[in-house]
Amino acid sequence: MRILVANVNTTASMTDAIAESARSAASPGTEIVGITPRFGADSCEGNFESYLAAIAVMDAITSYDGEFDAVIQAGYGEHGREGLQELLDVPVVDITEAAASTAMYLGHKYSVVTTLDRTVPLIEDRLKLAGLDSRCASVRASGLGVLELESDPERAVEAIVAQSREAVDRDHAEVICLGCGGMAELEDKVKAATGVPIVDGVRAAVTVAEGLVRMGLSTSKVRTYATPRQKKVIGWPFQF
Amino acid sequence: MRILVANVNTTASMTDAIAESARSAASPGTEIVGITPRFGADSCEGNFESYLAAIAVMDAITSYDGEFDAVIQAGYGEHGREGLQELLDVPVVDITEAAASTAMYLGHKYSVVTTLDRTVPLIEDRLKLAGLDSRCASVRASGLGVLELESDPERAVEAIVAQSREAVDRDHAEVICLGCGGMAELEDKVKAATGVPIVDGVRAAVTVAEGLVRMGLSTSKVRTYATPRQKKVIGWPFQF
Amino acid sequence: MRILVANVNTTASMTDAIAESARSAASPGTEIVGITPRFGADSCEGNFESYLAAIAVMDAITSYDGEFDAVIQAGYGEHGREGLQELLDVPVVDITEAAASTAMYLGHKYSVVTTLDRTVPLIEDRLKLAGLDSRCASVRASGLGVLELESDPERAVEAIVAQSREAVDRDHAEVICLGCGGMAELEDKVKAATGVPIVDGVRAAVTVAEGLVRMGLSTSKVRTYATPRQKKVIGWPFQF
Amino acid sequence: MRILVANVNTTASMTDAIAESARSAASPGTEIVGITPRFGADSCEGNFESYLAAIAVMDAITSYDGEFDAVIQAGYGEHGREGLQELLDVPVVDITEAAASTAMYLGHKYSVVTTLDRTVPLIEDRLKLAGLDSRCASVRASGLGVLELESDPERAVEAIVAQSREAVDRDHAEVICLGCGGMAELEDKVKAATGVPIVDGVRAAVTVAEGLVRMGLSTSKVRTYATPRQKKVIGWPFQF
Amino acid sequence: MRILVANVNTTASMTDAIAESARSAASPGTEIVGITPRFGADSCEGNFESYLAAIAVMDAITSYDGEFDAVIQAGYGEHGREGLQELLDVPVVDITEAAASTAMYLGHKYSVVTTLDRTVPLIEDRLKLAGLDSRCASVRASGLGVLELESDPERAVEAIVAQSREAVDRDHAEVICLGCGGMAELEDKVKAATGVPIVDGVRAAVTVAEGLVRMGLSTSKVRTYATPRQKKVIGWPFQF
Amino acid sequence: MRILVANVNTTASMTDAIAESARSAASPGTEIVGITPRFGADSCEGNFESYLAAIAVMDAITSYDGEFDAVIQAGYGEHGREGLQELLDVPVVDITEAAASTAMYLGHKYSVVTTLDRTVPLIEDRLKLAGLDSRCASVRASGLGVLELESDPERAVEAIVAQSREAVDRDHAEVICLGCGGMAELEDKVKAATGVPIVDGVRAAVTVAEGLVRMGLSTSKVRTYATPRQKKVIGWPFQF
Repeated sequence: MRILVANVNTTASMTDAIAESARSAASPGTEIVGITPRFGADSCEGNFESYLAAIAVMDAITSYDGEFDAVIQAGYGEHGREGLQELLDVPVVDITEAAASTAMYLGHKYSVVTTLDRTVPLIEDRLKLAGLDSRCASVRASGLGVLELESDPERAVEAIVAQSREAVDRDHAEVICLGCGGMAELEDKVKAATGVPIVDGVRAAVTVAEGLVRMGLSTSKVRTYATPRQKKVIGWPFQF
Repeated sequence: MRILVANVNTTASMTDAIAESARSAASPGTEIVGITPRFGADSCEGNFESYLAAIAVMDAITSYDGEFDAVIQAGYGEHGREGLQELLDVPVVDITEAAASTAMYLGHKYSVVTTLDRTVPLIEDRLKLAGLDSRCASVRASGLGVLELESDPERAVEAIVAQSREAVDRDHAEVICLGCGGMAELEDKVKAATGVPIVDGVRAAVTVAEGLVRMGLSTSKVRTYATPRQKKVIGWPFQF
Repeated sequence: MRILVANVNTTASMTDAIAESARSAASPGTEIVGITPRFGADSCEGNFESYLAAIAVMDAITSYDGEFDAVIQAGYGEHGREGLQELLDVPVVDITEAAASTAMYLGHKYSVVTTLDRTVPLIEDRLKLAGLDSRCASVRASGLGVLELESDPERAVEAIVAQSREAVDRDHAEVICLGCGGMAELEDKVKAATGVPIVDGVRAAVTVAEGLVRMGLSTSKVRTYATPRQKKVIGWPFQF
Repeated sequence: MRILVANVNTTASMTDAIAESARSAASPGTEIVGITPRFGADSCEGNFESYLAAIAVMDAITSYDGEFDAVIQAGYGEHGREGLQELLDVPVVDITEAAASTAMYLGHKYSVVTTLDRTVPLIEDRLKLAGLDSRCASVRASGLGVLELESDPERAVEAIVAQSREAVDRDHAEVICLGCGGMAELEDKVKAATGVPIVDGVRAAVTVAEGLVRMGLSTSKVRTYATPRQKKVIGWPFQF
Repeated sequence: MRILVANVNTTASMTDAIAESARSAASPGTEIVGITPRFGADSCEGNFESYLAAIAVMDAITSYDGEFDAVIQAGYGEHGREGLQELLDVPVVDITEAAASTAMYLGHKYSVVTTLDRTVPLIEDRLKLAGLDSRCASVRASGLGVLELESDPERAVEAIVAQSREAVDRDHAEVICLGCGGMAELEDKVKAATGVPIVDGVRAAVTVAEGLVRMGLSTSKVRTYATPRQKKVIGWPFQF
Repeated sequence: MRILVANVNTTASMTDAIAESARSAASPGTEIVGITPRFGADSCEGNFESYLAAIAVMDAITSYDGEFDAVIQAGYGEHGREGLQELLDVPVVDITEAAASTAMYLGHKYSVVTTLDRTVPLIEDRLKLAGLDSRCASVRASGLGVLELESDPERAVEAIVAQSREAVDRDHAEVICLGCGGMAELEDKVKAATGVPIVDGVRAAVTVAEGLVRMGLSTSKVRTYATPRQKKVIGWPFQF
């Protein structure tokens, strides 16, 4: 089974980290292919960048040269999953949703801890649309940007650990979903500080995608995610 | 005051019809400028096309050469309004939301009647995100495509009138929002058939936008719709 | 166009301040007429007073001698709007709802900051009934009475500014609706302290009412707000 | 124990029927006193009439000459209960709420069957405000007016039985609340036709009120229903 | 009238205290019979113990030798009420629900204050299922176990008073439901400290049960709570 | 990896069918062990039987002699999952929830089609508690009992196919969860009749459980599902 894991930003090192994380949860025999969009922001931290990423991921996936069995959209709180579902016949799994649905098997309430405060409403909105918000205790932000996770990891970890503690102590979360990826040690430290299970969206998405493929299930095509009707679409596929 | 009214599809005749409709609700002294995206589908009827339109509208608005006081995104149930809000300092009004908030002043419950069935969930989702869904009695579809409104108007009108009647009789709607534009006679016929007020999203959006400008109000920049951070964005603005 | 702006209390100086505020948002050609009820409390701060005001406003509006195109009920969180809608053929706009629907175009979440704590549940209930509550971050009170806004304005402003800051910092409001009127400087100070857009309900209601009139829209009469059936009503209109 | 049961309309024969019904559920030692407002509509079928009744009931109760232990507001879906709670120190029970809270002990979902269609949204709104709506399967109307229950009882009963059957068969109600009073045989016929428990709001309210009095409980005065502040209230109490 | 009041744990002294409390709210002529399950935990503080109690209460009630008119399940936030409703023809009243529906007649919002933190989600879930959660301001825990209420009453009272104060001051509760029973002085102290009405679930349940019996109402048998179909049930009734 | 799949009824042939179904979705290396409770009903169709099953499953699992990595509770809409979570350190997956969370990856709305009408509210309640209800279009029943699926399979299939069609056509479901197991051909026929993906709860649960185990995740023990406190529990473990 081959699963494409699409980064939503254009930073190739992030794609590598995400793919690495995905591989750590994959079954033997599952091939993980990391996909980096050819346009868009080097980190996705808001609606404009996320909308651009939505199209960039569709561009990258539909121009992927090869077979694949499922697609993971590996951005937290990002737009675009519904578009991929229309364009593809294989299952599409969003990591925000995979983390939430996984967390709901582990505790009564879960929280999401992410980086920038401005992305909190995007995550809240995606969870609301997905209908996975009623057991969400809170979405909290560390206040650090996506790329600072790489540039000053120690401070980033500290800030995320602090917010995770607040989520457990004040918001009564029993599980933490980490809304930012690519740091092996982060998970361990949050777990040590809070004593609750930590869910990584990318890994959760791999298990969801594998499960769907194994059951022979894919996106329903009867209504919302039907293949787009044949029509004139100017400029698509993008020619640059 | 100058208001840009952005069509979400690439059909110029639709832009003209939308702009015409906008002008019919504008105050003296308000200039309405219709904007047609330079790429995207000739009609927007699903998530892929809507996401592409979201970017195409941002592309068109940000490359508009001139001053303007507000922007109306004139697509029913479409993605993208949040991105425009980040990129601009002037108010942005989505017609789905303008129609709903206007209808809520006129009756206890309202319904939306649109064209294709597959767009119903998109409209429902946008209303849910906007927090304007709790008094929505139903979103109903005539089963006809956007362009069929132009090619076979009589049948289109008939189908929409029939659904509007159902909305009033079965779903207890007291107001109908027409989720498709550009047809003067449609409004009259639905009104005659149902006896309830008919809200046109484009016209409603013009009055909302004018009101915001007159009060000197624009998008809050403290969190969700803050201007994007300076960063590397590959391929944007689009160079084709 | 003539719009009646009904104060809900019997303090004429409040009516003047409200009308003044309304005029500052009105288009050229719109005449604003302030209406003071002939009975009721000199300030409305609870359910009994609000129910009495509901009837007093209906009494005042239905005995107004002249034509008018719309009515604004200028009380925050008050009862009565639905009754006016039944009795009149022109649009009726409640300022609590106008402020909320306007704020929702400006930010992801809004808060209302009002005077007395005991009126908070009234405002929450009106927003819930109006279906405009899901994006309301909080309704906060300064703890001061309506008339203290006039008698000790400095302290009143300070208390309201403090609560507005809390709304933005703790409740993540991106817009503030001021649930108390008649103070020009209040708005400036709250804006300066928080950096978010400030919505005044009276001004917002004027733009909503004008918009409805301009579009030729008024209250649906098919169900909830149908004209009352002919029947024996003892004591009405009030003869004192 | 003395309980005042306030009719919301000015038809004395309705007051008698309501008081009779109340007595049939009262404990030995409980005195039921029927109260007819001195102004208002002879039947309450909409917002204007209901707001007027709200004030008329407050007028009647506060001018009642004697002691009492609780008040029942005996109108279905009417305004005003919150005002009475502020003005009085004894418990106030609304029959819409008493019927609903009682029905919820008897089945998984309940429906309300009432008279005029235009009162359905009022009942829905009162249940929503009361937080008793989530197990309400439907509010249905027979299409007949309140007074027709008296003038053509046979047809009225038939229409209400028909709607009750629909509530059970289509909406999956397991209990029916009759949103209209004064007809002994109605209850029997609806029960025979549906096989489900039938709740009469007036009787339910008597048991709730008695229970509160017996437990020594009354309205909380710390916030929403605090006694009105001392202030100038023009024209109240009404002098006619 | 005879009402069985079933303790959910196997501590007989608790049963006595509960029955005593029930008697204090019962009408003359109502006989209260305390029931202690013959198996299960000596205190119920979690899901396993609560599920076991659910079956133990069904075992105890169905093997009760004598007539009875109603059953009260006297455990806060416990499982099982729906099963009793299927097995019996008389009304079944859960104290969590009786406390909540009673509190809703007394204030705009109520809070529940209970013992162990781990039972908070159980109470929240029961209120959600019962549809009585929308006016619940909070469920708070003192952090003490059920039996510590008996062993160190002073400290227990202090901790519960402290949480009740928080509920009123921070969560804006206007009524407190005590989610733990058997302590006469507790109620007085919480009332003195907060100034709000205190609802005891057992007493509230007695008045609800008496009311239902007096009105001749019992559980609807048309669907959810229909008598179990005849079938082979191994091991039931329990033979030990 | 060894997964225990617990049937909720005492019919061993059902356990075999469930285990067979589970095996069809298991990865190589996963051992599925079917568990039949030693007491309880031969089919679970209501609250009493479900509560009894809850305890019977806990009895069976805790007395299982051997190691295991996860438990699946294979009853649709049944009580008990929370109790197992407290008693065990390995993940517990309920098939109602697994089916729903899986369906939500495949379409905008899903429906559940089950057997007896009386179990519909149980399923609705479990989905509400799980927070997986907001995208549930409907829960529909074929009107046939669990064991009739075995005794008259043809008629059972027909009835379930008919309800599935209604779910898609009327309720706008895009995915069907089959709330009854053990029939290979059922799935094919429903799929052929509706054209939408069909989710089997048991198979979905296997993929969820395997995923959790693979990620090293298990139930959070910090609050709701903490191991029961040491205390006196009379009669447990059951000695018969």
